[in-house]
Amino acid sequence: MKKEEMKEAILKAKYDKGLKWDSLAEAAGLSPEFTCSACLGMNHLEKKSADAVATLLDLGEDVSIALQKYPLKTWSQVVPTDPVIYRWYEIVGVYGETIKEIISDKFGDGIMSAIDFSMNIEKQEDPNGDRVVVTLNGKFLPYKSW
Amino acid sequence: MKKEEMKEAILKAKYDKGLKWDSLAEAAGLSPEFTCSACLGMNHLEKKSADAVATLLDLGEDVSIALQKYPLKTWSQVVPTDPVIYRWYEIVGVYGETIKEIISDKFGDGIMSAIDFSMNIEKQEDPNGDRVVVTLNGKFLPYKSW
Amino acid sequence: MKKEEMKEAILKAKYDKGLKWDSLAEAAGLSPEFTCSACLGMNHLEKKSADAVATLLDLGEDVSIALQKYPLKTWSQVVPTDPVIYRWYEIVGVYGETIKEIISDKFGDGIMSAIDFSMNIEKQEDPNGDRVVVTLNGKFLPYKSW
Amino acid sequence: MKKEEMKEAILKAKYDKGLKWDSLAEAAGLSPEFTCSACLGMNHLEKKSADAVATLLDLGEDVSIALQKYPLKTWSQVVPTDPVIYRWYEIVGVYGETIKEIISDKFGDGIMSAIDFSMNIEKQEDPNGDRVVVTLNGKFLPYKSW
Amino acid sequence: MKKEEMKEAILKAKYDKGLKWDSLAEAAGLSPEFTCSACLGMNHLEKKSADAVATLLDLGEDVSIALQKYPLKTWSQVVPTDPVIYRWYEIVGVYGETIKEIISDKFGDGIMSAIDFSMNIEKQEDPNGDRVVVTLNGKFLPYKSW
Amino acid sequence: MKKEEMKEAILKAKYDKGLKWDSLAEAAGLSPEFTCSACLGMNHLEKKSADAVATLLDLGEDVSIALQKYPLKTWSQVVPTDPVIYRWYEIVGVYGETIKEIISDKFGDGIMSAIDFSMNIEKQEDPNGDRVVVTLNGKFLPYKSW
Amino acid sequence: MKKEEMKEAILKAKYDKGLKWDSLAEAAGLSPEFTCSACLGMNHLEKKSADAVATLLDLGEDVSIALQKYPLKTWSQVVPTDPVIYRWYEIVGVYGETIKEIISDKFGDGIMSAIDFSMNIEKQEDPNGDRVVVTLNGKFLPYKSW
Amino acid sequence: MKKEEMKEAILKAKYDKGLKWDSLAEAAGLSPEFTCSACLGMNHLEKKSADAVATLLDLGEDVSIALQKYPLKTWSQVVPTDPVIYRWYEIVGVYGETIKEIISDKFGDGIMSAIDFSMNIEKQEDPNGDRVVVTLNGKFLPYKSW
Amino acid sequence: MKKEEMKEAILKAKYDKGLKWDSLAEAAGLSPEFTCSACLGMNHLEKKSADAVATLLDLGEDVSIALQKYPLKTWSQVVPTDPVIYRWYEIVGVYGETIKEIISDKFGDGIMSAIDFSMNIEKQEDPNGDRVVVTLNGKFLPYKSW
Amino acid sequence: MKKEEMKEAILKAKYDKGLKWDSLAEAAGLSPEFTCSACLGMNHLEKKSADAVATLLDLGEDVSIALQKYPLKTWSQVVPTDPVIYRWYEIVGVYGETIKEIISDKFGDGIMSAIDFSMNIEKQEDPNGDRVVVTLNGKFLPYKSW
Repeated sequence: MKKEEMKEAILKAKYDKGLKWDSLAEAAGLSPEFTCSACLGMNHLEKKSADAVATLLDLGEDVSIALQKYPLKTWSQVVPTDPVIYRWYEIVGVYGETIKEIISDKFGDGIMSAIDFSMNIEKQEDPNGDRVVVTLNGKFLPYKSW
Repeated sequence: MKKEEMKEAILKAKYDKGLKWDSLAEAAGLSPEFTCSACLGMNHLEKKSADAVATLLDLGEDVSIALQKYPLKTWSQVVPTDPVIYRWYEIVGVYGETIKEIISDKFGDGIMSAIDFSMNIEKQEDPNGDRVVVTLNGKFLPYKSW
Repeated sequence: MKKEEMKEAILKAKYDKGLKWDSLAEAAGLSPEFTCSACLGMNHLEKKSADAVATLLDLGEDVSIALQKYPLKTWSQVVPTDPVIYRWYEIVGVYGETIKEIISDKFGDGIMSAIDFSMNIEKQEDPNGDRVVVTLNGKFLPYKSW
Repeated sequence: MKKEEMKEAILKAKYDKGLKWDSLAEAAGLSPEFTCSACLGMNHLEKKSADAVATLLDLGEDVSIALQKYPLKTWSQVVPTDPVIYRWYEIVGVYGETIKEIISDKFGDGIMSAIDFSMNIEKQEDPNGDRVVVTLNGKFLPYKSW
Repeated sequence: MKKEEMKEAILKAKYDKGLKWDSLAEAAGLSPEFTCSACLGMNHLEKKSADAVATLLDLGEDVSIALQKYPLKTWSQVVPTDPVIYRWYEIVGVYGETIKEIISDKFGDGIMSAIDFSMNIEKQEDPNGDRVVVTLNGKFLPYKSW
Repeated sequence: MKKEEMKEAILKAKYDKGLKWDSLAEAAGLSPEFTCSACLGMNHLEKKSADAVATLLDLGEDVSIALQKYPLKTWSQVVPTDPVIYRWYEIVGVYGETIKEIISDKFGDGIMSAIDFSMNIEKQEDPNGDRVVVTLNGKFLPYKSW
Repeated sequence: MKKEEMKEAILKAKYDKGLKWDSLAEAAGLSPEFTCSACLGMNHLEKKSADAVATLLDLGEDVSIALQKYPLKTWSQVVPTDPVIYRWYEIVGVYGETIKEIISDKFGDGIMSAIDFSMNIEKQEDPNGDRVVVTLNGKFLPYKSW
Repeated sequence: MKKEEMKEAILKAKYDKGLKWDSLAEAAGLSPEFTCSACLGMNHLEKKSADAVATLLDLGEDVSIALQKYPLKTWSQVVPTDPVIYRWYEIVGVYGETIKEIISDKFGDGIMSAIDFSMNIEKQEDPNGDRVVVTLNGKFLPYKSW
Repeated sequence: MKKEEMKEAILKAKYDKGLKWDSLAEAAGLSPEFTCSACLGMNHLEKKSADAVATLLDLGEDVSIALQKYPLKTWSQVVPTDPVIYRWYEIVGVYGETIKEIISDKFGDGIMSAIDFSMNIEKQEDPNGDRVVVTLNGKFLPYKSW
Repeated sequence: MKKEEMKEAILKAKYDKGLKWDSLAEAAGLSPEFTCSACLGMNHLEKKSADAVATLLDLGEDVSIALQKYPLKTWSQVVPTDPVIYRWYEIVGVYGETIKEIISDKFGDGIMSAIDFSMNIEKQEDPNGDRVVVTLNGKFLPYKSW
C-alpha cells in the first residue's frame, strides 16, 4: 500500500467514525500534529503507534505498515493555493528576512532546524474572534567554518 | 527615498552602531519582530515610531517618511534559497496540510489570518543545543456562506 | 466520493435536467454564486443544503456527503487559460495596484478579505450589448502592529 | 519621460501634497479608479485630463505627455505577492469557474470584457468592521461561430 | 462524454473515413476552421450542426451532446512545442509589439478581439513553394475611460 | 548604439513629429508592418531604408547603423501581458491545433514558415464597430524524410 | 492506437528481437535516424515504410497506421534531464549565439531550418576513446522584408 | 573588464572593421567556431590567441585578459527565443531521444561529451537554396558501474 | 515491465525480506550505491548482476530484464522537495561556484564528470552525533580548443 | 560595501596577484573550500580571518567588514547552467533518491545536514586522466517524533 492510498484510507475512516486528530494522537501516544503529519504521509510512525492508529480506525495491517515506512516528502505546488496553506507561504515571504534577522541577533549566524523540530497548534478563545496560536520549536544550528 | 534605500540605510546604521533589533524596538515602542519587518520594508510605522527609529540611528527625516509609507509587499524568489528562510518554506510544504487539518478539527472550515497576526521569536537555552521558539498568533477567519 | 467526482456528477445531472444554478441555489437556500462554488468543489455546504441539492438532482447520499466536506482549494494553472477566467487574471494584473491604492486612500493600510467575502453576478440589459455586473464584498482587515 | 518615471513623480507629489485619488479624479473629470490606473501607467488620459492632473500636482508638461501616451501593460509577477493583490488572484483561482458557470447560465457562451469595462470601489461602513465593495461592470461578448 | 473523449472519437472517425475538415464543415453549415475548433473541443456547436457532424461520422448522440456543451478552454503547454504551433507563438513574440503599434496608429488605444473573431486559412499555390495564407478578423475594442 | 536605445529614440522622434508608421514605411520603401518591426528591433533594414528612416526622423547615423544590424530576437515575457498581445497568445492557444489540422488537410505534414513570411494589418470599417483584419502569409515547408 | 502506445510496442519488439535501428531503417528504406524518430512518434512514415517496419517487428496493422499519422510533436521537460539529451541542451546554451554569428557571417540574416533538415550520427573510432560525430544539415532560410 | 563588456567591445570592433570570424580565427590560430565562442564569453583563449585577437581589433590588453579568464557559462532564457537558436532547441526536443537511441545502438549506454567536443559550420551551396551543415564531434563517455 | 514498475517491485521485496542495499550489492558484485541507483531505475546492470538481484529478491526474469535496459534518466521536480535531497540541491546552490573555483585552481578550465563517476556513502560514528561522509570521484575533463 | 562588490574585488585582486585559494586559506587559517565560499559571499569569516585575507590581497577594511557580515544566501538560476555546477545538479537528480536510500539503511529516517557540514576537494592523479575527489561530511539529523 502506497502512502497516498494510506492517507485516503485514514481520512475516510476518520471521517466515517467522526474522530478528531486528538483521538488518533492519544492512540499513537504522540501529539496530534505529529500523528496527523504521519497519517498524511509526511512522517513515519513506530510500529506500536502505527498499529494503534490502524486498530482505532479498524484498518488493516497494510495501513500500519504503510505508516511505518520512511516517506519521500514531496509536494507538487511550488506556490500552494489552498488559502490556509497560502497564508503560511505569505508569512514566509513577508517575514522570512525578519526571522533571519532576529535569529542572527539572538544566536549568531545559523538556522532554525526543520528536522529537530516540533509544532503545536492551539485555539485561543477571544471575544473578538478566536485565534490560532502556533508554536514552532526548532534547534538552532550554527554555521561552522572548517 | 524608496523602501529599498531605506532598508539599506537602516541596516548599515544598525551595523555601524552595533545595535540589536531589541534597541530599535524599544525606541519604536513595538516588538522587535514588527519593528524589524518595518525596517526591512514589509510593514509601515506610525510617525512617532518612525521618528524614534530614525533618531536612534542618526538618520534623516527621509528615512522616517519612508518608514511611514504603506509598503507594496513583494519578493522575487518563488522558492526562497537562503537556508533560514527555505527551512520555513519546507515547513509549509511538509506541514501545511497538517496545519489545515488541525485547524479544521478545532475551529471548523476557515483560515488563520496572516494580517490580523503577530509573531514572537525567543531563544530557549538547552544543554543539547539552544532552540528557536517561534509563536505565531493569527485570528481565525471562518469561511462564510451567502 | 472525491470532490472531483462529485463535481462531475453534479454538472452532468444539472445538464441532463436542464437546470440552472438559480434552481440549485433555491434548493440550498443560498445564493447561486456560493452554491455553484460549492458544487464545483471550492466551498462546503451544511448538511441541509447539501441534501437538498443532491435530492433536486436525484443524486445519492455520497454526493451530499462530498458537498459537506471541507475542501482543499487547489487549481493547477498558475495563469488561467479559459478566456472568461483569464480576463479576471488580466484585471488583477492591470488594476491590482489601483485597487491597493484606492483601498489605502479610503481605509488605511490593510486588505480586502477573500474569506469574509461574498460575490454577486447580475445581468444588466443594455441596447449596446448586455453587461455583466459583478459585486464583490469583502471585509476590510487592517494591518496591525504589535 | 517613461511611464515608470511618471508614476514615481505622481506618487511622490500626491504624497507630499497630502492629496487623495478623489482630488486627482475630480481634476481629471473621471472616476478615481480610472484616474489612478492611468497615473500608475496602466491607462492613458486625454490631454485635458492629463494637463489637469499635472497642474494639480505642480508637475511639468512631460508628466502630462507621459499620461497621454498609450501604455504597454506589463507586470512582472506571474503570481502577485502583495497581500491586497494576491487576495484578488486567489478569488480568481477559487471563484473563476463559478464566474464562468453563472455567466454561461445567464448569457450563454461568452466572456465578460476586461476592455469595455469599469470598476468602482466603495467603503461600506459596518459595526463589525468596514467592508470593501467593488463593482465590476464589463460588456458581455458572445462567442460567434463563422 | 467528456470533450477530450469526443475529440478522440471524432479524429479517429474522420481518419477512418478519409474525410477532410471541409466535409465536416459542409455538414455543419459553418467554416472548416470553426468546425474543426469545435471538434477539437475549443468551441461549441448548435444542436443542428452537432447532429450533422455526428451523423456524418456515424457517431452517437453522446458526441453530438458533447459538441454542444460550452467548453472550458485550457491548454497545458505554456510555450507550445509542436513546430506548427510554435511558429505562431514565435510570430506573437516577434511581431506582437508591431501589431500593437499598427493598431494604435490606425484605431487609437484598444485591442483586437479574440472573441468576436474569425479565421480563414487558404492555400496559395506558388511555383516557389505553396504558401499558407491566414486571415484573422477581430473586432476593434477601444479602451474606455470612466 | 544598442537596438533598445535605437527603439526608444525612434519611438520618441515619431511621437514628437506626430508621424505614423505609414510615413516611415513610405520612406523605407517597405510595408508599415515590416518597417515598424525593424524600428522595434525585431528585423534589420538595408542601408538605404535605414538611412531614409533616420533622415525622416532627424536622427543620426548611429540610428541608421543600429537599424542595419542583424537583431538577436528576444522577449522576456513567456506569457505576454499586454492585452493586445495576449489576445494573440490566446488565439495560438485556442486555435493552434486547428491551424495544424487545416494545414495538414490542405498541404500534408509540414509547417507554415515564420521566416519566409509577411503580415498585413488593415482597418475594416463596420457600422457595428470597426474590425482589425490581419493577413499572415507564410511559405509551407513540408517535413522531409531522409 | 496512439503514438505513445505505438512507441512502446515498437521498442519492446525491437528489444525482444534484438534488432538495431539499422535493420528497421533498411526495412523502411530510410536512414536509421529518421526511422527511429518516426518510431518514437516524432515523424510519420509513408505506408510502404510503415508496413515494412511493422512486418519486420511482427506487429499488426494498427502499428503501421499509427506510424503513418502526422504527429503532434510535444515534449514535457522544458529542460531535459537525461544526460545524453541535456548535453545537447547545454550545447544550444553554450554555442547557440556562436551558431547564429557564424551563420550571419556566411549567409546573412536568416536561420537554419529544423524542418527541411536531416541528421546523421556516426561512430568514429579513436584510440583515445571513440567519438560520436553528428552531422546536421538544414536549409538556410533568409529573413525577407516586404 | 567583465566578459560581457569584452563581448560588446569585440562585436563593435568587428563590425566597425568589417571583419568576419574567419579573420579573427586566423589570428587566433583556431577555428572560427571556437574563436567566436570565446569572444562571446563562452570559452577562454590562451594568452597568445587572446593577444592576437585583441591586436587585430585594435583593442587593449584588458580585452586580452578578459579573453583569457575562465568563463562562468550562463544564459538567462530557459527556452531561447531567437529563431536561429530556438530551432536548435526544437531539434533537441524533437530528436533528443533519437540521438540517445542511435548512440545506445552503436556505442552502448553512455553519452556524447559536450566538453571534449568540437563543432564545425559550413555553407553547402545548393541551387534549391544553400544549406547549413553543422558537424558536432564529441567523445563517447560510457557509464561505468562501480 | 517498465523501470517504474521494476522499482516498486524491488522496493517492496526488499522491505518484505528485511534486506539492506549491502546485501543486494553483494549479490550484484557491485557497490551498494551503484546497485541501489540501478534498482531505482537510474542505471542499468549487466545480465549477471541483474539476475543475481532478481534471484535474491525472488522476483522474476522480467525484473532482471528491466534492470538490464538502458534507462532514460528523468526527474520531475526541478527543485527537489524531500529534505534529504533538497539539502544536496542547497549544497549545489551554496557551494557550486566554490567547487568551480577550486577545480579551476587545481586543474585549469574544465569540469568534473558526472558520467565517469563513482560515489561512496559511509557512516562516521561520532559522540556528538554520527556523520554522513560522502565521497564523489569524477574524472576531470578539460575544455579543449579546436 | 555589498557582498557582490566584495566578491568582485577579491576575485580581481586574486587574479592580478596570481594567487590561489590555498594561499588565501592559509592566511585565513581555514580550508580553501570554506575560505573560497566566504570570498564568494556564501559564508562569513571571523574578524581575524577576514583581516588576514584583505591584507594578503591589499584590499581595504571595507572588504574585511563585508567578509564578516552574515550573508543572505541567494542564487538566481533555479537550474544552474555552468557545466561544472550543472553536473552537480545532475548528480542530485540522478543519485538523490539513492543517497536517501543508503542513508535510511545505515542511519534510519533523517537527513545529512548542509549546515553542520564540511567539504574537501582533492586532485587524484591518474594516468587515464586526473580525477576530482570531493568529500562531503555532514551531521546526520534524525527526524524526531513529538
